[in-house]
Amino acid sequence: MKTSKRTKRWRILLPLVVVALMLMVATPVFAQDGGPGGEVDDITLSLNIMWMILGGFLVFFMQAGFALVETGFTRNKNVAHTMLMNMMVFCIGAIGYWLTGFAFQFGGVNAAYPEVARLGVVAGEWAHSPITLGDWTGQLATPLLRFGQFGILGGSGFMLAGVGTNVGILAFFLFQMVFMDTAATIPTGSMAERIKFIGFVLMSLWVSMFIYPLVAGWIWGGGWVQNLGRSLGLGNGAVDFAGSGPVHMIGGAIALAGALVIGPRIGKFNKDGSANTIPGHSISLGVLGTIILFFGWFGFNPGSSLGFLGGFRNLAVIAAINTLLAGAAGGCAAMTYMWLVGPTKKPDPGMSVNGILAGLVAITAPCAFVAGWAAVVIGLIAGVLVCWASVWIEKLKIDDPVGAIPVHFFNGVWGVLAVGIFANGNPDTAAWNGVESAVTGLLYGGSTQIIAQTIEVTSIFVFAFGLSYVFFKVLAAFKLLRVSAEVELQGLDLPEMGTLGYPADWEPSDLDEKDLQALPGATAKKALGAAD
Amino acid sequence: MKTSKRTKRWRILLPLVVVALMLMVATPVFAQDGGPGGEVDDITLSLNIMWMILGGFLVFFMQAGFALVETGFTRNKNVAHTMLMNMMVFCIGAIGYWLTGFAFQFGGVNAAYPEVARLGVVAGEWAHSPITLGDWTGQLATPLLRFGQFGILGGSGFMLAGVGTNVGILAFFLFQMVFMDTAATIPTGSMAERIKFIGFVLMSLWVSMFIYPLVAGWIWGGGWVQNLGRSLGLGNGAVDFAGSGPVHMIGGAIALAGALVIGPRIGKFNKDGSANTIPGHSISLGVLGTIILFFGWFGFNPGSSLGFLGGFRNLAVIAAINTLLAGAAGGCAAMTYMWLVGPTKKPDPGMSVNGILAGLVAITAPCAFVAGWAAVVIGLIAGVLVCWASVWIEKLKIDDPVGAIPVHFFNGVWGVLAVGIFANGNPDTAAWNGVESAVTGLLYGGSTQIIAQTIEVTSIFVFAFGLSYVFFKVLAAFKLLRVSAEVELQGLDLPEMGTLGYPADWEPSDLDEKDLQALPGATAKKALGAAD
Amino acid sequence: MKTSKRTKRWRILLPLVVVALMLMVATPVFAQDGGPGGEVDDITLSLNIMWMILGGFLVFFMQAGFALVETGFTRNKNVAHTMLMNMMVFCIGAIGYWLTGFAFQFGGVNAAYPEVARLGVVAGEWAHSPITLGDWTGQLATPLLRFGQFGILGGSGFMLAGVGTNVGILAFFLFQMVFMDTAATIPTGSMAERIKFIGFVLMSLWVSMFIYPLVAGWIWGGGWVQNLGRSLGLGNGAVDFAGSGPVHMIGGAIALAGALVIGPRIGKFNKDGSANTIPGHSISLGVLGTIILFFGWFGFNPGSSLGFLGGFRNLAVIAAINTLLAGAAGGCAAMTYMWLVGPTKKPDPGMSVNGILAGLVAITAPCAFVAGWAAVVIGLIAGVLVCWASVWIEKLKIDDPVGAIPVHFFNGVWGVLAVGIFANGNPDTAAWNGVESAVTGLLYGGSTQIIAQTIEVTSIFVFAFGLSYVFFKVLAAFKLLRVSAEVELQGLDLPEMGTLGYPADWEPSDLDEKDLQALPGATAKKALGAAD
Repeated sequence: MKTSKRTKRWRILLPLVVVALMLMVATPVFAQDGGPGGEVDDITLSLNIMWMILGGFLVFFMQAGFALVETGFTRNKNVAHTMLMNMMVFCIGAIGYWLTGFAFQFGGVNAAYPEVARLGVVAGEWAHSPITLGDWTGQLATPLLRFGQFGILGGSGFMLAGVGTNVGILAFFLFQMVFMDTAATIPTGSMAERIKFIGFVLMSLWVSMFIYPLVAGWIWGGGWVQNLGRSLGLGNGAVDFAGSGPVHMIGGAIALAGALVIGPRIGKFNKDGSANTIPGHSISLGVLGTIILFFGWFGFNPGSSLGFLGGFRNLAVIAAINTLLAGAAGGCAAMTYMWLVGPTKKPDPGMSVNGILAGLVAITAPCAFVAGWAAVVIGLIAGVLVCWASVWIEKLKIDDPVGAIPVHFFNGVWGVLAVGIFANGNPDTAAWNGVESAVTGLLYGGSTQIIAQTIEVTSIFVFAFGLSYVFFKVLAAFKLLRVSAEVELQGLDLPEMGTLGYPADWEPSDLDEKDLQALPGATAKKALGAAD
Repeated sequence: MKTSKRTKRWRILLPLVVVALMLMVATPVFAQDGGPGGEVDDITLSLNIMWMILGGFLVFFMQAGFALVETGFTRNKNVAHTMLMNMMVFCIGAIGYWLTGFAFQFGGVNAAYPEVARLGVVAGEWAHSPITLGDWTGQLATPLLRFGQFGILGGSGFMLAGVGTNVGILAFFLFQMVFMDTAATIPTGSMAERIKFIGFVLMSLWVSMFIYPLVAGWIWGGGWVQNLGRSLGLGNGAVDFAGSGPVHMIGGAIALAGALVIGPRIGKFNKDGSANTIPGHSISLGVLGTIILFFGWFGFNPGSSLGFLGGFRNLAVIAAINTLLAGAAGGCAAMTYMWLVGPTKKPDPGMSVNGILAGLVAITAPCAFVAGWAAVVIGLIAGVLVCWASVWIEKLKIDDPVGAIPVHFFNGVWGVLAVGIFANGNPDTAAWNGVESAVTGLLYGGSTQIIAQTIEVTSIFVFAFGLSYVFFKVLAAFKLLRVSAEVELQGLDLPEMGTLGYPADWEPSDLDEKDLQALPGATAKKALGAAD
Repeated sequence: MKTSKRTKRWRILLPLVVVALMLMVATPVFAQDGGPGGEVDDITLSLNIMWMILGGFLVFFMQAGFALVETGFTRNKNVAHTMLMNMMVFCIGAIGYWLTGFAFQFGGVNAAYPEVARLGVVAGEWAHSPITLGDWTGQLATPLLRFGQFGILGGSGFMLAGVGTNVGILAFFLFQMVFMDTAATIPTGSMAERIKFIGFVLMSLWVSMFIYPLVAGWIWGGGWVQNLGRSLGLGNGAVDFAGSGPVHMIGGAIALAGALVIGPRIGKFNKDGSANTIPGHSISLGVLGTIILFFGWFGFNPGSSLGFLGGFRNLAVIAAINTLLAGAAGGCAAMTYMWLVGPTKKPDPGMSVNGILAGLVAITAPCAFVAGWAAVVIGLIAGVLVCWASVWIEKLKIDDPVGAIPVHFFNGVWGVLAVGIFANGNPDTAAWNGVESAVTGLLYGGSTQIIAQTIEVTSIFVFAFGLSYVFFKVLAAFKLLRVSAEVELQGLDLPEMGTLGYPADWEPSDLDEKDLQALPGATAKKALGAAD
């Protein structure tokens, strides 16, 4: 942020000095391609990309966390199925996002980042961003569908065609791909233990190729929700630093649609409407997964500054501290709540896990916009909210084996709204989404930001939930969604994957010394001899 | 690539420019706020913070390592309890450290880093540091208790009040918080399988809010132990690069106090005084945890340079190599020792794990101050020391289920003292703790450094162990420390946490086709139908 | 450290100097040690080292991935043995590589990186490289065996002697050490469940101290294969960005030699020559390990740019994207292949895992040289190739419990050759290995690159496989290679390691209240009392 300004001032002042001296030598020295100016630009680009791409690697690793949380909190008989979904969602999603997703989401990206206004963007015009990642002029500039400031769908960058030499865009692709993957993985939790593997594959394509790019593009890809500040004067437009909305609420909304259509697991609800607790098979794996997710979140949130110089660095560091505080507060709140008023009156492991995740989801949108105390408050509320929401959805007869909906949907909503309440008008956020003022919530006198945030929530719910509900209905109609009751009762591992999660040791049968000697392989006999 | 060429051209052309000018144009051009000078300052700050905060993320991930090592090397019946302690210690500790811990430890921080003297600090005066993280003037400058150069307790920065816009301090808070967390997690190992969860919660608050900040502040927060060089002429004062003392020995001392007060697990010692081996339930998890800890140590030690330019980069790289070599040497030494002279005459997995960890703990203080060969020697000694210490504490009837005391306490002591022996007077360490000379141990002619190190060891033992012993006695008196014998024999998971670590698969009971059709949820019947 | 001082000095001195001199005083001001030029050099070095060393840390973490994949896909009864091999291979290897390996591999390193030619290297002469890591003049400049351009073995840097103050070299040592470790770990997979622990220890020394340094030095350490461009005009000489050849194919070749010599596990092959499937004990651990490996590969491939400015940054980012795409494509291809034409007609978990790993291995050499679409093609082919190769080696009666040979050997070959086919002549790769042209494969008109790649493959196979075959034969002759048939049938854990992987909970026997009160330890009685 300041960096760019300084470069500018430097570039403006220098020629004057040089001209005054009546010497033309300075220009070549400081020309575009050489001298400290050019080197500093190169260093700046490197630092920004390094920060973002390292963040992307950490977010990738969250896939291991999701795999373990989902598998740990489901049953032994479905281990291979649940693990494989979490491994393959990345593979399928990466290809799907490369084919069409990235193009739909960012193919007509409009500047949505700080300094856009300062850099001379005229209100009503479109520019190409983010400015931290080099010059994107003329690239990702083709919308498929747009009405004035209301962008709907991008239309360039399919299979990264045409962007092959712009490393800023390539790195951005990697970063955005892993975010999409997080959204795609969330519904595997709510439909675990009963979804057909082919249904999962189709869902992965649905999320990576279309529904996530469509809706997330509205908030991050220069779409209409992001531009509500410039178009309708609603604060800075919808503001979401790292994706409580675009990632978690989208994922949670799809998870909700999926859970509704696929229905509860056999035995989850009794005839009297009461619910049974179906414990997962491994607290070790579940808790390990939670710590991995927390670790990865330090890439998710701070990495979303997309840069690490000047104001971008400041926002990244603030995001890191707030992530730490909100996740911790969420865990403490949920543990304490369950200990004091939960059914077991004990510090419940499962809800403590979900409290941490809830705090992390809730701070994801506001992480760079709020003070530390606000992060603690947001986390504490998230930790209680996730406990309540878990009860609500059970009352609605929705079966969500790992709590994907309470964690990602409800706290995604809470996180998006929290920006509109707690954003503290930090000057480093001025010009966000091309609106000159800083991002400011209700508590700091910003009265319209909360409206933009509410529109973000509403649009995500209507479209991500609505369209996905139809999608899952179609899958169900073609009998591609749910395994048979026999398979479900037996466990999905053998029928769907061909192997158990934890097979018993295979042993050679009927083996005597003669057999051993008759075995093919030169060393079998020798091995036997060595045993004497 | 291009970089080198540009620098070259710059160096050739610049003189011509300067000669031609004969004007004092340089000053405005390179002024504080603009031009390459200002940009370079910004880049420098970004690089330093990026290095440190990435290190902090890696240290955070060590929490997963501790969780797995402790749980893997304890019994199945206590899995949920042990995992949850290791997850919640971070959540509770983060909030506790935010509330008071950081303020007590660093609220009156005195410059304790290289260059302080060179930068014009007058002996006997106080400055604010570390200089790699920007300008802290006027912040964290309020001690609660100090006698001249003898700082005891800090008194500003509670809940990060007043430091909200200084990102150097914010990033430093995150980094220090995860270090405190490591210390807080160590005692959960020595008291595992018998500590009440409420006792664990109170212990987490004790460590994060008071005892760790108090004692670690003496060595890192500008306290009296760190200033022994300036005040009494003892070498560079106590020198501890990454915390063999402040983190591991403090954690180990608390672990020792806790193990003494809580007493051994039922059955650990026989009537004749001999000890039984109580194996853990999962070598997989234990070894995985060890590798994660080793991985995280690359954030712990190299990250403690708090910067990555010039000498700080050099120290960070040296720290990384030495961490690698000492950890590896520790593992080789312990494995070989057990293979040759251990009771089983086999390469014992548990002791190999602890040998690696011992090597890592021992190199933590000296990692940036010693040569590679010395790192190998320190690691080899640590690997044998941990085997011996494990025998010693069993002879003293101390039951330490995962070897927290041999690893962290004994090798913490060894690491602190090793600085006084092997520190090689690297010029990059000159001015450490405000003393002009480089850090130099006995083998390189530094005769007083070892005294400062001994005082570090002594002060940690007296205060961290002593005060914690009293603290645990109080907990025990209020019956908050140890579970009942019944609970211990049954396993802590159900009585304390309300769930088993590895529950058997829940299955619906008495289910026939009629039941299935009667289940609530629209798809149950459909699912059954699909099964036909 | 130096940074701040230099900035200050610069600001104060510059005006005075400029005014007073009126002559060519600028040169000393901007000399090597001060001024923005010097600062930019320092920043450049820091950025490059930071990127590489963080990559090294990620590669270290791959050790956890290998441990879990190998242990997850082998049996319960060998868990402690398999985990320990994977933990200790790093410890033993680090010491072995420090003692002799690094010196053999890089002790006579010749510039093998871009810009070498541009920077004035005369064809036929030797320079010291990589240029991203500072000035290595006069260091690592002593070959042990070399014939003109045909370097065979390095001869300096044993125990890092003489390089102690060059942090570029130190960081490079760490990075190269973890690459060697990857190669050393691969054969533990093909020989799992039957290799003696002492045989594994000796194999670790063989790989780390000699065979890997020898052969990998030919491709990366300035050896004859790397110089085929300068010496014989074959493209840019053998080009391998991150080691499909030096790491994976070497490791795979050793794994193949080991599996041949040690022979199949008892019961793997039936008398009629057909093979039995011996499933591993934990899909959870195996899949977790795979995700960890994928994560670590983002250090492995992008980190191999050894720098992050200008063209090096560009190559690193391209490497990251291609790694992502090829790994994902490999997983999709193998899963789909097994689903459609595999024996179970299901999305087989084990082959899906190996498909991902195959894609990653295959893209390792070409990752920075090919377009995104080519990465997808390379990955898709790798995913099918690994399925075929698994069948081939079973037909050859080779027993490879975890598929190390299909993954690392076959796809290592494929990756090395893929450079010669798909390399797209990116200008950022000009001057690679001191040849002025960019790296260009068959599809882009480069006709001789494929010959150099073929020679890489051939030389690795002949020497890494050949010499290792002899090595394992010697081990077998001394009865150091394979456990007895009894031990193998029982499982290696108790006989070899002295402990089971998953011991049942130890419980005190014959305990009554009197016993409890008689136990040593002050709190036992109290604990019992508390239970009343």
